[in-house]
Amino acid sequence: MMLPIQTFDSVSSTYTYLLADPAAGEAVLIDPVDQKWERDLAQLKRLNLRLAWVIETHAHADHITSAGKLREVTGAKAACPAGCGITPADLQLFDGDVIRFGRAEEIKVLHTPGHTAGSMCFTWRGNVFTGDTLLIDGCGRTDFQSGSAEELYDSVTGRLFTLPEETLMWPGHDYKDRSVSTIGWEKHHNARLTGRDKQGFVELMSKLDLPKPKMIDVAVPANQNLGLPQGV
Amino acid sequence: MMLPIQTFDSVSSTYTYLLADPAAGEAVLIDPVDQKWERDLAQLKRLNLRLAWVIETHAHADHITSAGKLREVTGAKAACPAGCGITPADLQLFDGDVIRFGRAEEIKVLHTPGHTAGSMCFTWRGNVFTGDTLLIDGCGRTDFQSGSAEELYDSVTGRLFTLPEETLMWPGHDYKDRSVSTIGWEKHHNARLTGRDKQGFVELMSKLDLPKPKMIDVAVPANQNLGLPQGV
Repeated sequence: MMLPIQTFDSVSSTYTYLLADPAAGEAVLIDPVDQKWERDLAQLKRLNLRLAWVIETHAHADHITSAGKLREVTGAKAACPAGCGITPADLQLFDGDVIRFGRAEEIKVLHTPGHTAGSMCFTWRGNVFTGDTLLIDGCGRTDFQSGSAEELYDSVTGRLFTLPEETLMWPGHDYKDRSVSTIGWEKHHNARLTGRDKQGFVELMSKLDLPKPKMIDVAVPANQNLGLPQGV
Repeated sequence: MMLPIQTFDSVSSTYTYLLADPAAGEAVLIDPVDQKWERDLAQLKRLNLRLAWVIETHAHADHITSAGKLREVTGAKAACPAGCGITPADLQLFDGDVIRFGRAEEIKVLHTPGHTAGSMCFTWRGNVFTGDTLLIDGCGRTDFQSGSAEELYDSVTGRLFTLPEETLMWPGHDYKDRSVSTIGWEKHHNARLTGRDKQGFVELMSKLDLPKPKMIDVAVPANQNLGLPQGV
């Protein structure tokens, strides 16, 4: 099994993933963070990899992407979920699309609305990158920015939990220094989803009463512009 | 290439590595941290892996290992560098030893004195785990606990930098959210080692004037007892 390289932004607790085909010298980044673009570029250099794609799981509300900056400095292309309003992306992604890189690497696109209406997950070589749709022993919130607990429930139970149980599940965030889970474990043990029907899940999510994300008013428009200043 | 799973302890900035043979359901942990033993155990459960070995790169001065605790709760064996005084280990490691797990996984042992006299690095499937001997764009300190800048220079230039350049180098710590490097990059760009002869390196290290590690008086004896309370 080929694993991704997982890198953490300790400011926003965001995981960025580097998927590589070392023999072809080509790589993809999923969900890179604005203030870490130089770190990620240095990491690509250390590993002797050329960046082919920057991929976003959604328009984040808690941090700003470095997709635009990385595209500018590397010539990589940006691929973003069609339903997220990220208009300057080079490729608008739809469910079922395949992103190709390296010699024969294929990243498959799953549209998984719920955290936001446009949110997507990506599968690659027995791994799934779940963004804020599914977290380790939890899930993304559904109470703002086109979120829907009903849709998240359907996305997770109907799309993610039907992947092979041994699929490694790599979340978009973790707040307890945890790295990875499996679809099988989450299916049978997830604190929010396991043992709840849709109605029970929707009820639970409606009672979370979370504060408004501090950065949302800045982050969402910025991310819809690939993290670049407006007007650029 | 098979990659390890890298997990971070944000309190001590320590990386713990999980090496797995998923088909055999067996795993090894390198340098687990005391306060994270339940996290690491939960991660093994999520991945459906049985812990075969806990391996230490050295007797740490900045944090306490969970090797003893993990051995107690999982039945795994502890393998530790012979020169570190970790007397309750199940296996005392010597240069050239091989630790086997899973169906046919082999971890090779390199004695790399310098950070401490007993420090070791481990290679596995194109990866090297360098503990505090070599860090990304840096190296471990050599000014306490049997450290020696001369020996570290010889260990890094004579042992680590002679590994294939594409070898992925996984450090024991990083303080800037970086994950991984390569032997080739460190050989040609490391801020402390590249372009310095042994004398120049020794001089540099002698001038660092670092404070005494806060935890050293507690951590070293604790780690020499696998992190278990003394007398257990």
